[in-house]
Amino acid sequence: MLDLLIKNADVISTAPGAVTVRHGHDIAIQGNRIDAVLPTGQIDAGRAKEVIDASEMIAMPGLINAHCHNAMVLFRGAGEDVSIERWFNEVIWPLESNLTAEDVYWGALLGLAEMIEAGVTTVADHYFFMDEVARAVEQAGTRANLGWAVFSAGVERPENKLRETTEFVERWQGGADGRITTWLAPHSPYTCDEAFLRLSADWARKLNVGIHTHVSETREQVQISLTKTGRTPFEVLRDAGVFEVPTIIAHAAHPTDGDIALMARAGAGVAHCPKTFLKLAAGIAPVLKMREAGIPVGIGSDGVVSNNTLDILEQTRLAAMLQKHENRNAEVLTIADALTMACNDGARVLHLPDLGDLAPGKLADLILIRTDSPHMQPVLNVTANVLYSAQAADVDTVICNGKLLMRGRNLLTLDKRQIIAEVRSRMARLQQRIPGQRLQTYEA
Amino acid sequence: MLDLLIKNADVISTAPGAVTVRHGHDIAIQGNRIDAVLPTGQIDAGRAKEVIDASEMIAMPGLINAHCHNAMVLFRGAGEDVSIERWFNEVIWPLESNLTAEDVYWGALLGLAEMIEAGVTTVADHYFFMDEVARAVEQAGTRANLGWAVFSAGVERPENKLRETTEFVERWQGGADGRITTWLAPHSPYTCDEAFLRLSADWARKLNVGIHTHVSETREQVQISLTKTGRTPFEVLRDAGVFEVPTIIAHAAHPTDGDIALMARAGAGVAHCPKTFLKLAAGIAPVLKMREAGIPVGIGSDGVVSNNTLDILEQTRLAAMLQKHENRNAEVLTIADALTMACNDGARVLHLPDLGDLAPGKLADLILIRTDSPHMQPVLNVTANVLYSAQAADVDTVICNGKLLMRGRNLLTLDKRQIIAEVRSRMARLQQRIPGQRLQTYEA
Repeated sequence: MLDLLIKNADVISTAPGAVTVRHGHDIAIQGNRIDAVLPTGQIDAGRAKEVIDASEMIAMPGLINAHCHNAMVLFRGAGEDVSIERWFNEVIWPLESNLTAEDVYWGALLGLAEMIEAGVTTVADHYFFMDEVARAVEQAGTRANLGWAVFSAGVERPENKLRETTEFVERWQGGADGRITTWLAPHSPYTCDEAFLRLSADWARKLNVGIHTHVSETREQVQISLTKTGRTPFEVLRDAGVFEVPTIIAHAAHPTDGDIALMARAGAGVAHCPKTFLKLAAGIAPVLKMREAGIPVGIGSDGVVSNNTLDILEQTRLAAMLQKHENRNAEVLTIADALTMACNDGARVLHLPDLGDLAPGKLADLILIRTDSPHMQPVLNVTANVLYSAQAADVDTVICNGKLLMRGRNLLTLDKRQIIAEVRSRMARLQQRIPGQRLQTYEA
Repeated sequence: MLDLLIKNADVISTAPGAVTVRHGHDIAIQGNRIDAVLPTGQIDAGRAKEVIDASEMIAMPGLINAHCHNAMVLFRGAGEDVSIERWFNEVIWPLESNLTAEDVYWGALLGLAEMIEAGVTTVADHYFFMDEVARAVEQAGTRANLGWAVFSAGVERPENKLRETTEFVERWQGGADGRITTWLAPHSPYTCDEAFLRLSADWARKLNVGIHTHVSETREQVQISLTKTGRTPFEVLRDAGVFEVPTIIAHAAHPTDGDIALMARAGAGVAHCPKTFLKLAAGIAPVLKMREAGIPVGIGSDGVVSNNTLDILEQTRLAAMLQKHENRNAEVLTIADALTMACNDGARVLHLPDLGDLAPGKLADLILIRTDSPHMQPVLNVTANVLYSAQAADVDTVICNGKLLMRGRNLLTLDKRQIIAEVRSRMARLQQRIPGQRLQTYEA
């Protein structure tokens, strides 16, 4: 018996360098893996426990969010039309100092509901109170790489905080039926000193995990690092041994050519979050150059206080359009490249080689997108319609690890009314700004 | 009696320089006008023929699409990842030579269905076979400024073609209960010679209408104009008398400071279409500068072969983010500015002063946006959620000229299944590329 048979979809495969569309294909799922993808009718529907008719739908791999601060959804809209300094010091870090573990749990559920509704099946989440986030992921049925954010700046005995996060790593590694992986998450070279970064790298090596951190977000960060240390933020990380373990480099908006070579040699992965960077006017990462150097560049949503949605399709579209704009060349970063970034490259960044494509043997993380709306018609070009015309709301069905999480836009694992009500009940307290109370200080 | 009462919405007013949000307000509609906007409960619901509960919804003016080639939806996805030259010469102009009047009718209906679903109540449509487009607008119930596109390059006796379009103007001016206005639409200074532009301006003056045209889309167009004529495309239009009538200047991606001053003096309006310009790598218009000069800059979708959707919310979001990026300043082109562009400034560009705001006395063109989805929660910042988090699919209800066009996402004036079926039946023929057959030739 098969567990699930999806019938008659237009199937997008996102193998690197070989994005293909197969019209009228069936997808067989057995357990948590894709068993077969064949022309419709070749698989006996009678063998399947459940059959989904995907006529007028596009099937593609579940989208991968390679960098996120998920529970920040609690503060959506709180920091608009402000510089990055004001954004950190007047909005984010004061507000985040209000968070309790329970707030983060409900925030994470709200964000996971949003991501499932947008076809995002995997997220690299870099935040606080990560045990609660892991519980939320367990419940939602999605896949996640979780890192507990830590700072050394202004923290007494930061090594103790780091140790607590290594305990989280051990507690949840491989949790939720293998859907959860855990990495370390020192926040950035501008909030973590070199000794702390070295300690993080040492721990990551011992635990056999990677490091998820923020690097070279602004020109000013690079300049300050050069002035203070004589090295770029990437070089500081290198000297601390961070590149000796797997890395998710969030943003990398302003790498030097040397930094790009360094990432390529190290096998580092980049998470590109273009909407944040437009909104904060921080500059756009040289995605083409990084891809040409062989660096996997996945797509991230960042937190919604800068990005406002967790919609990876929206970010991927922006990523493609902005590289055309920045390079003054309409022919670069093609639709195939962009879809590869959102799926296969995201999986490479997270070191999850069984993800990122819709093909036999891969983990069964996939989504169905409706095409029967005016804005998706006619379907002359399946991949163009997905990248440039679809909305998150066109995602009809979401499957992760072989299990249905959404069908006909109904969430099957989460109760969104309850989640929204819980979140609302917390907002009066969470919106307070207590003078002098903030998590960190941003200097630029 | 009132015709319609909308109860308990968060109401966004987009008066220029005074975007406001009023929580929990009711909107009374009488005939085709907004009668009152008052705190909920102050208007007797018993007086209304129809009542809509808009709790958990945001009300705002209908969005205005200030530049569109609507029926190009027929070719959605046909020209991807190509330069502007290839886009015109290998894709658009060969394909458009296949169009019949009936094709344009069904294409226009498909596009109008998409626009209603995206909350767009008014469109400035610049295309061919405009009688059929007017019929489609009449049926859809939306508002439109229609211009029949004409060229002089390569056309025998182009003045005859122009005269036919003046007859269209007279035939449909004020049609569909006043929802239709008609202007002239010489395509651009690169496809129309100066004599033809002068003739267009003369006709527009006689007819007391405006001109809708494309200007300075690329750096190369400006350079070629300077080389050939010693003047910028804007100066050519000025010398032809075009600025002596109202104008919709589509794109204006590369105006000189002198061109901006010229537009400001003339009272010209600009239609800004950022997605097209990212995708074709043609450069982004200096929107801030134009706004500072007092030029109304509305938001356009352009045609979907470059833009891929007719979603004005998506374009407005891009417009705001790109000005932050291009000016390296996160504090410019605020949310209030952006919403003003999509509504009030669009109305100014189209010379429709009774549109563009949700306030007593204005025409009753408004939309309701749902906020009860995870990606719209919490609602700390109503205008931020609309601009930066909403999807077109969050538009629940659309009212134009006092009439309901969509409710609960059900289209009330158009049958989208029939429209999609009709469009599909035409696609095999429409996709043919007949060697040597094309509408125009683009030279750059």
